[in-house]
Amino acid sequence: MNEMSIITLTTDWGTKDYYLASLKGTILKQIPDANIIDVSHEITPFDLSEASYILRNSWKNFPEGTVHIIGISSEASPDHPHLLIKEKGQFFIGADSGLFCLLFDETPTEIYELDVIQSSDKFTFSTKDVFVNVAKHIVQGKDLNILGERIPELTKRTAFQPVVDPDVIKGKIIYIDHYQNVVTNISESLFKEVFGRKKFQILVNAGQYKITQIHSSYGDVGEGELVALFGTDNLLEIAQNRGRAAGLLGLELDDVVRIEVKE
Amino acid sequence: MNEMSIITLTTDWGTKDYYLASLKGTILKQIPDANIIDVSHEITPFDLSEASYILRNSWKNFPEGTVHIIGISSEASPDHPHLLIKEKGQFFIGADSGLFCLLFDETPTEIYELDVIQSSDKFTFSTKDVFVNVAKHIVQGKDLNILGERIPELTKRTAFQPVVDPDVIKGKIIYIDHYQNVVTNISESLFKEVFGRKKFQILVNAGQYKITQIHSSYGDVGEGELVALFGTDNLLEIAQNRGRAAGLLGLELDDVVRIEVKE
Amino acid sequence: MNEMSIITLTTDWGTKDYYLASLKGTILKQIPDANIIDVSHEITPFDLSEASYILRNSWKNFPEGTVHIIGISSEASPDHPHLLIKEKGQFFIGADSGLFCLLFDETPTEIYELDVIQSSDKFTFSTKDVFVNVAKHIVQGKDLNILGERIPELTKRTAFQPVVDPDVIKGKIIYIDHYQNVVTNISESLFKEVFGRKKFQILVNAGQYKITQIHSSYGDVGEGELVALFGTDNLLEIAQNRGRAAGLLGLELDDVVRIEVKE
Repeated sequence: MNEMSIITLTTDWGTKDYYLASLKGTILKQIPDANIIDVSHEITPFDLSEASYILRNSWKNFPEGTVHIIGISSEASPDHPHLLIKEKGQFFIGADSGLFCLLFDETPTEIYELDVIQSSDKFTFSTKDVFVNVAKHIVQGKDLNILGERIPELTKRTAFQPVVDPDVIKGKIIYIDHYQNVVTNISESLFKEVFGRKKFQILVNAGQYKITQIHSSYGDVGEGELVALFGTDNLLEIAQNRGRAAGLLGLELDDVVRIEVKE
Repeated sequence: MNEMSIITLTTDWGTKDYYLASLKGTILKQIPDANIIDVSHEITPFDLSEASYILRNSWKNFPEGTVHIIGISSEASPDHPHLLIKEKGQFFIGADSGLFCLLFDETPTEIYELDVIQSSDKFTFSTKDVFVNVAKHIVQGKDLNILGERIPELTKRTAFQPVVDPDVIKGKIIYIDHYQNVVTNISESLFKEVFGRKKFQILVNAGQYKITQIHSSYGDVGEGELVALFGTDNLLEIAQNRGRAAGLLGLELDDVVRIEVKE
Repeated sequence: MNEMSIITLTTDWGTKDYYLASLKGTILKQIPDANIIDVSHEITPFDLSEASYILRNSWKNFPEGTVHIIGISSEASPDHPHLLIKEKGQFFIGADSGLFCLLFDETPTEIYELDVIQSSDKFTFSTKDVFVNVAKHIVQGKDLNILGERIPELTKRTAFQPVVDPDVIKGKIIYIDHYQNVVTNISESLFKEVFGRKKFQILVNAGQYKITQIHSSYGDVGEGELVALFGTDNLLEIAQNRGRAAGLLGLELDDVVRIEVKE
């Protein structure tokens, strides 16, 4: 059983239509021992940042050998060729639309520009008609060089980085989760670097709400109170214990979150 | 591992309630090596047309031996007996409510009217209490004739076909997908038959929007522009590149889409 | 294949975020032969009653050896320690927040208070960092006593029981399903005990709607008509054949449903 091939799927397709079932059927036809795992199919359509945030924070948990198929904006074009990436023993297949460069801490060393003949004359379903063939090739342990040419770089896409002044970090909200917890782009390491042991305050919604402490768990504050913590993604998160922070505070994606030294 | 039994599920149950988990537990108890694949659980309640559209366009991708359980309007009645159908090496179990005749291009040759004693005295859960027993019988390779009598025909349910006049096709919208792309009942073959190399225009929303070209991919037009193409279901689809056509154009199920020769 | 380890997941996380994929990846890394089954991820956040209703009505369908991981309010506290419960050959892992005592008809004999060192220094993800380690220990067949101390009791949480007067049962709505069928806390056995063969009427929405018969199937009444039946959960359910009873009747969770003898 250890030899089951784990294939994960990350798409913006939803789970109602026939697309996902067609893909899963095709995978099982080509790779009978596939163990198909849904990462997420509820990515906001065409939202590469959101997809990269979700996959970036989950792929490292999977075992070596896992193949991640990314079905979002997956049509190839001269600017966005289909790629296969091997990184830390795992494999990633998708179009190089800018998502890949947000997935990894450093540029992966093994990047292949795919040159695979698709198994359908339709141009609208490469996830099923191209990527599954590539996945099959991988799980059969065949030489990756057959699939296409090695290339050195990924399409760059700059994630908005926090602005740092002496004693100030100005970040923004990059994700709102199922509980309406709010995730910022301010990392724990940046926070520690700037504030060390200084007193600070986190200003949310143009300073309407202030938080002056970092906790380690939602339950460290009373029910309904605001709490700031670093999540398993190592990013600063603003939440309300058992509440729905984004709705309560009127917060939206891209809103500014400011941290400053408190005199 | 090649011997895992693929069981797919298509229901209108949603994924929150205990129904689906009960079914999956029951399947795994009866068929320990089952690989359960969700086709869709978001069928609009009782909507057989929608269910047939989704399953029709996905089942052919699955390998031979796959068992498809259909849990929508699945209570048996004298008019709608439980059936097992074998077609192209795959198996379909459900109530003959009119859905089956929309799944296949031709009447399947192997149709069995099930005569199975259910394993519960409740009458509200035949998917779990009857269909799983049938699936177990199938994956064990037993004689299908034991399950019930062969019958020659399915309950007819007429899908609305496009109306064809010389130089005109009048179809309708049969499905709106996750991206709000709009799928019509106009097939590629009908389109080619009527228009061949003639110039045409597709009239949407009573002629408010006109499309005069068929493309092969959403990305063939600029972002936000309308595009018509034939999907992997071979049906004419109206979409907006990276947009939400149904919402934008005010389109709904059953709306007319008309194609006519353009002088 | 009989040896695949079934791990079920019940959470209030939704299926969009990276949490579920991280958990599944971690499970597959620790337990390569895991067959992961989603019970539900759409529990209303922090709603232990709802979670217990769903899991209570599904776990008995699973085969012996199944491990159920419960990721709802799963942070440990002195009042709510992490527990492992073995009952009828199945295993349950979660925080003792009051959910467990609603899952079983009687107090399980094997209850362990977990004393497991988590594999992360973050305190916000014990489902992934503690429960998976416990699940691995279980599927490897190791001694459960190593995991923690046996304790005799679960945290009590009283489910609201129907009030019974001579010839009257006053219950309430405890769940509304995907079809907007309404589930009450009135069991079939209580109903039979109180009314036996007497004539009765079920009063819904302060008596605005009356039902005087129990049917065995939704289809026993005409389309759009109200029907009362005992579901597979053995609880009284009010539904509308092919309709949406809760919306139609204006019913909500905790609303009273009264049954009285009809003169």
